[in-house]
Amino acid sequence: MRFRRVAVIGVGLIGGSFALALKKARLAGHIVGAGRSRANLRRALKRRAIDSIAASPAAAAENADLIMIATPVSHFPRIFSSVRNKIKSTAILTDAGSTKRDVVAAARKGLGRKVSQFVPGHPIAGAEKSGVGAASGDLFEGKRVVLTPIRGNPPARVRTLEKTWSKVKAKVSTMSPREHDEVFAAVSHLPHLLAYGLVSDIAGRRNAKQLFGYAAGGFRDFTRIASSHPEMWRDICVANGDCLLHELSLFERRMKRIRSMLKGRRARALEKTFAAARLARDRWLKGRA
Amino acid sequence: MRFRRVAVIGVGLIGGSFALALKKARLAGHIVGAGRSRANLRRALKRRAIDSIAASPAAAAENADLIMIATPVSHFPRIFSSVRNKIKSTAILTDAGSTKRDVVAAARKGLGRKVSQFVPGHPIAGAEKSGVGAASGDLFEGKRVVLTPIRGNPPARVRTLEKTWSKVKAKVSTMSPREHDEVFAAVSHLPHLLAYGLVSDIAGRRNAKQLFGYAAGGFRDFTRIASSHPEMWRDICVANGDCLLHELSLFERRMKRIRSMLKGRRARALEKTFAAARLARDRWLKGRA
Repeated sequence: MRFRRVAVIGVGLIGGSFALALKKARLAGHIVGAGRSRANLRRALKRRAIDSIAASPAAAAENADLIMIATPVSHFPRIFSSVRNKIKSTAILTDAGSTKRDVVAAARKGLGRKVSQFVPGHPIAGAEKSGVGAASGDLFEGKRVVLTPIRGNPPARVRTLEKTWSKVKAKVSTMSPREHDEVFAAVSHLPHLLAYGLVSDIAGRRNAKQLFGYAAGGFRDFTRIASSHPEMWRDICVANGDCLLHELSLFERRMKRIRSMLKGRRARALEKTFAAARLARDRWLKGRA
Repeated sequence: MRFRRVAVIGVGLIGGSFALALKKARLAGHIVGAGRSRANLRRALKRRAIDSIAASPAAAAENADLIMIATPVSHFPRIFSSVRNKIKSTAILTDAGSTKRDVVAAARKGLGRKVSQFVPGHPIAGAEKSGVGAASGDLFEGKRVVLTPIRGNPPARVRTLEKTWSKVKAKVSTMSPREHDEVFAAVSHLPHLLAYGLVSDIAGRRNAKQLFGYAAGGFRDFTRIASSHPEMWRDICVANGDCLLHELSLFERRMKRIRSMLKGRRARALEKTFAAARLARDRWLKGRA
């Protein structure tokens, strides 16, 4: 299994790593990149993540056997429309968007009947760094990739994509777009929102400088994800707003209970809550190792 | 400057690291340890963090020139009372408690007139690991230590303690106990509470196993501090409840604003908030490096 020509639209951390990983696993012949930033594309060329630069997503998609869209999801509608008449009938389209219901809706609208060639995907390999400079051919090793196939996807194409991700050592699973968006609202989107919220909160204080001066390792790790790409997270928040608002409500309900323990100085209840959280987290870490 | 005899009461991560750091800097003659867990004290002896084990805090304090109390703060009242009649008049007492107003109140009550010998302190070098096994003689290098001197402390003793911390390469600063508790409620206690809250929230779901299954690196770092010592954090929450509740309210107010951006799908406002948070965090990290 080898793709003669691969198009990567959006050659950032994820797109660039996908290109490098395909090359490492010898799965790609020629890789063409497209994107907004010429400087970034030139860096990608220099790093040999891509072999050539296309003038537009449409030009990149032409004749490609595999097309990966890895831009912020707000660009997807325009990209789908522009590649619609360029993709060949045997091409597989996929993406790396962090939300899936909106991506599927955009694909239906932009690709029309060709939507059956589109197999949505989400590699869980984000980082607070962005750009092809942070990309790595090992990025997906041991990481999860969720595919959310849609009605009409030929099973053979879904399998080809699954195998491709497996060959770059990712752990592939499938679920529905809705289930995907619910799960990631809880374990990814909400933590990002809270981290951004805490840093905003501190940064907005009159004594922000003093406060940051005493922030230490715990604060650094808790807020690491608040250094994530603002545009990407804006898109995630808009696309997955309903699930995220639901998660925020559940979290607030939990914090309300903790608040009442604090107010009542209920030491045992607090300790029990903390101990249960530590146990759950430690079990999770053990299971991952 | 050298302490002939040092007592460390509570030889865990902080107490053990303090002992190791004093030895490394050749500031201590004999170090005696006291604590609840014999097994932990034996480990401390084996690691040469301490030179002998005392049967009780009072026995450890007797004849000591420097006494470091590094147990969870809920044990402080009992410890202060028990050492009161044992400490010599030239001894310096200090502590490593994460809250300071409650510690000062306990010291006044437990030590009586001898409270002037007590110079409260807080090394900002916590970790989610606990016990002497995680201790290290380098733990305080480049880390901050806050002293919160109280009325009656002889300035020379405060200076001696400052110098001691400086010799183990900590960055020492001083503030009032109230200011300390306010600052750390914001940059340490609240993040811990939120991390515990998020893990509790996820762990309490029917589909907790599935959710944890898709949690990745962002979640791991965000929740690292939810693996912290439950007893210690219980004490911090009870001791600093008023400041922590205030911080929680400020955070909730910020989240309410973010919630309304989400609800209104106000993409630009979200992106602006995220970009400002990222900028503030990146500036902070740069300033620390």
